[in-house]
Amino acid sequence: MPYVKIQVTREGTAPGATQTTAEQKAKLIKGVSDLLLDVLAKPQSATFVVIEEVEMDSWGVGGLPVEEFRKQQIAKG
Amino acid sequence: MPYVKIQVTREGTAPGATQTTAEQKAKLIKGVSDLLLDVLAKPQSATFVVIEEVEMDSWGVGGLPVEEFRKQQIAKG
Amino acid sequence: MPYVKIQVTREGTAPGATQTTAEQKAKLIKGVSDLLLDVLAKPQSATFVVIEEVEMDSWGVGGLPVEEFRKQQIAKG
Amino acid sequence: MPYVKIQVTREGTAPGATQTTAEQKAKLIKGVSDLLLDVLAKPQSATFVVIEEVEMDSWGVGGLPVEEFRKQQIAKG
Amino acid sequence: MPYVKIQVTREGTAPGATQTTAEQKAKLIKGVSDLLLDVLAKPQSATFVVIEEVEMDSWGVGGLPVEEFRKQQIAKG
Amino acid sequence: MPYVKIQVTREGTAPGATQTTAEQKAKLIKGVSDLLLDVLAKPQSATFVVIEEVEMDSWGVGGLPVEEFRKQQIAKG
Repeated sequence: MPYVKIQVTREGTAPGATQTTAEQKAKLIKGVSDLLLDVLAKPQSATFVVIEEVEMDSWGVGGLPVEEFRKQQIAKG
Repeated sequence: MPYVKIQVTREGTAPGATQTTAEQKAKLIKGVSDLLLDVLAKPQSATFVVIEEVEMDSWGVGGLPVEEFRKQQIAKG
Repeated sequence: MPYVKIQVTREGTAPGATQTTAEQKAKLIKGVSDLLLDVLAKPQSATFVVIEEVEMDSWGVGGLPVEEFRKQQIAKG
Repeated sequence: MPYVKIQVTREGTAPGATQTTAEQKAKLIKGVSDLLLDVLAKPQSATFVVIEEVEMDSWGVGGLPVEEFRKQQIAKG
Repeated sequence: MPYVKIQVTREGTAPGATQTTAEQKAKLIKGVSDLLLDVLAKPQSATFVVIEEVEMDSWGVGGLPVEEFRKQQIAKG
Repeated sequence: MPYVKIQVTREGTAPGATQTTAEQKAKLIKGVSDLLLDVLAKPQSATFVVIEEVEMDSWGVGGLPVEEFRKQQIAKG
């Protein structure tokens, strides 16, 4: 009876995309369900996967919104 | 001091609706608050209920996005 | 495909109990599953309910751990 | 390795705003990261902060959607 | 900046185990981190994975605690 | 109506402690409640703070359980 929540920033990683695409989501769902079957023998019909996208300015790391954090990391070299 | 999170797929179940309606949400809030009062004697003013709707293609079950999973189930009979 | 998380403080509300009892948990599970069937027509087999108990000193309200908050409320009358 | 989720109703508290502003979010991110550094000595680069805004009619308290609850509280005086 | 929460019932699936083993947890952590790198190009150092085990009587499905649900399913054939 | 969840690894950071102490938890609760009052003008009585401690081997980063990740980081210099 697993429940898996995947939380990511809303941003495009596929060409031309501005958010996670339906195809990428389907791959995440399949990948996580396969993993729980392989490692814990959980039947796939009993695994829920929920993908949550979070606005960029709502995700913080290093005390900063993530975009500013990345700029700072790049500036540091 | 209960906190209850209800996560559902964003889809209409009331006539003409494409998502959970405000009336349905109010019924869920009341129902859950009543339940916690009845079973655990929690005062309703101390119960938070949060309803989160999740895009259909962001919810997976059976290793598939939920819409494909349902089609597959129907095809199986 | 609902997923419901119920978070409560770990404390006894049934006579002699120091935490939520298995019987109370079963009532919460049944109550929430009935509610989602009634309000959103969700089949019960597709509803997951997870109950999480949180240590008293790990739950805060009013800027205080919940036990201190309750004492303060009582003192206020 | 802390992960902090801040869930608030989507409503404006800054002048003219209808939701939490980017500036307010940045203050929340900084404040929480400072707090975890001060209290638990967690390096800020290891702290994730996620802010989730919840529609007003999806948040319940006192058995009611939050807007109705507030009206009721005001009516009570 | 992904955050992944894996919630499972606390029960043994490895021989002699009564809960998820450290080795199984390590496989879940590696598998999820690999998946997010493959599908979304997320660097592994930016992926947090949290595994939460839930007591059997705190997990409900089909309106019942999961153990009773499984017995019922077996009885049905 | 904020709800804040703080998730940290279960480990001692105060002298002699093997987990977050009650005093540290009280400081986290006060700090977060103050922050939400300052930034969003949320009354403290309407703010819930929940602190969740996660076993060290249940928290992953960099594709590894956190303890192994830290050893690897130290080894890298």
